[in-house]
Amino acid sequence: MRALHLGPAAHLIDAPEPVAVDGEALVALRVAGVCDTDLQLARGYMGFTGIPGHEFVGEVLECSDASWVGKRVVGDINAGCGVCADCTERDGHHCEQRSVLGILGRPGCLAERFTLPARNLVAVPDDVPDEVAVFAEPFAAGLHVLQEVERAQARRVAVLGDGKLGLLTAFALRGAGVDVCVVGHHEAKLTLARGAGARGVLEQDLASEADPFDLVVEATGSPAGLQRALELLRPRGTLVLKTTVAEAREVDLTPLVVNELRLVGSRCGDLGRAIEHFTTGTSDPRALIDERYPLAQAAEALAHAGRRGVLKVLVTP
Amino acid sequence: MRALHLGPAAHLIDAPEPVAVDGEALVALRVAGVCDTDLQLARGYMGFTGIPGHEFVGEVLECSDASWVGKRVVGDINAGCGVCADCTERDGHHCEQRSVLGILGRPGCLAERFTLPARNLVAVPDDVPDEVAVFAEPFAAGLHVLQEVERAQARRVAVLGDGKLGLLTAFALRGAGVDVCVVGHHEAKLTLARGAGARGVLEQDLASEADPFDLVVEATGSPAGLQRALELLRPRGTLVLKTTVAEAREVDLTPLVVNELRLVGSRCGDLGRAIEHFTTGTSDPRALIDERYPLAQAAEALAHAGRRGVLKVLVTP
Repeated sequence: MRALHLGPAAHLIDAPEPVAVDGEALVALRVAGVCDTDLQLARGYMGFTGIPGHEFVGEVLECSDASWVGKRVVGDINAGCGVCADCTERDGHHCEQRSVLGILGRPGCLAERFTLPARNLVAVPDDVPDEVAVFAEPFAAGLHVLQEVERAQARRVAVLGDGKLGLLTAFALRGAGVDVCVVGHHEAKLTLARGAGARGVLEQDLASEADPFDLVVEATGSPAGLQRALELLRPRGTLVLKTTVAEAREVDLTPLVVNELRLVGSRCGDLGRAIEHFTTGTSDPRALIDERYPLAQAAEALAHAGRRGVLKVLVTP
Repeated sequence: MRALHLGPAAHLIDAPEPVAVDGEALVALRVAGVCDTDLQLARGYMGFTGIPGHEFVGEVLECSDASWVGKRVVGDINAGCGVCADCTERDGHHCEQRSVLGILGRPGCLAERFTLPARNLVAVPDDVPDEVAVFAEPFAAGLHVLQEVERAQARRVAVLGDGKLGLLTAFALRGAGVDVCVVGHHEAKLTLARGAGARGVLEQDLASEADPFDLVVEATGSPAGLQRALELLRPRGTLVLKTTVAEAREVDLTPLVVNELRLVGSRCGDLGRAIEHFTTGTSDPRALIDERYPLAQAAEALAHAGRRGVLKVLVTP
């Protein structure tokens, strides 16, 4: 089958047909999304080689649980062992034996077909189109911030960064009724944020903000973002760090102690909740789609997604 | 009056007599403690010049509230404006107008006399000796970690660093019944931790620890400590950062996101609670005293406190 392969370069390969073991589903790709993590993997993050891709909507071709076959699905990318405490008592996102679709030990979805444990799947209702459902994974990651907003009882919330992760996080928080301000560098992207009911402020205009924020989501993906986010917080405020940056960064953490800030790493969320949000339709992530490519041009899709200012690039089989 | 002065060098000066304005107390020093922050100020942290010192037990000489006069006291080092929301609704530790004894805009206690707002004072009961009470400020800072232990519902707790802040934090947590493991490099200091009921483990022996920790307190004061602390945590664990390091550090924060860790800056605590702990006598911080100097030799006291491996150095008028 056709698949994108990373390492050393990104190129299309004829990959071996994936085999769903017991408890797993074999899924045919309908639409995949390119994420910044894919771009980082392509640059050597985690020493990755293999088939990337973890944002998808697909159709189940085979599954030991026959009730899944033929269903349109999205899926949690963390495939835990299913028996450890993290898997049985929590969500398995930190299972030590886990594989992660297209990131760690499991070929990804930038391929005609791929596998995931059946328990990871979430059915997509008929009224949620493919090009909305494909955003479930990053939207769920945005929704995951909500628990920090609630824990901190934050009222003044900012998302730093108007890229796709920042915008989706803002969409997710707005969908949950949180008053959120997106801080960015691109008027066109801030307009998208405003369309979802968020405020959008150019970073150069931020000085006019009277008050610091209770909670800031760092979604710039740049090493400077963390320092800037720390500056925007009130004392005892919370910084949610969403983006992995594949490098050590020079950070002055003195403000963290002096101002008694909280810095929280946040990764994946609950795809079921994301699909629920899409069903009620409070925000439409399709505004973020920049371009579509066929899988045969997946390397070009990756290159396109890596261009400055580009939002979501989709890939279809 | 005699006082230690920093900037450019540390030397004794004949300082102007401090004047207590309305609402303030004039306090005569009985015993002061030298803190690592004093050593950092001496090295230029925050561009400090002036009289340092913020750990003290003293006697109130003058106060507009006459009930304080003659009392033996310790005191909260953060002197807020008393009228802003942070002062009226919280503890004023983050009042934007605050001065901080011996650190920011207020001459410190390494002097014969100094001033603090009367509302900052905590009376010391007769059965708490000066050389115990002088530990109230750093002990309160250690106790402040307790709220994070409770918030995280942490059971496996480690303190990384066996210096005075690490040991006092361990004493404070032990006093509150927390099972704590001190990780350090000095067998003699770990013995002090064990004397307070904590476990003490040499860092080179830590590999034998079967499980990661729910919460780690970073109290090494070294840039490498943060990275090490991150490694010791379980996924979704909490790292409490106690020590300010007067420099930017190269940190790889990827584990923070991937493992969804929480990093919490923690500074000052409640001196009243520290004095309560001393009254019930669950731990005796005097085990940390390394040397005593008269104020006339305060510069020597500072130099002594800066030597490798030295714990608490006290200064008396």
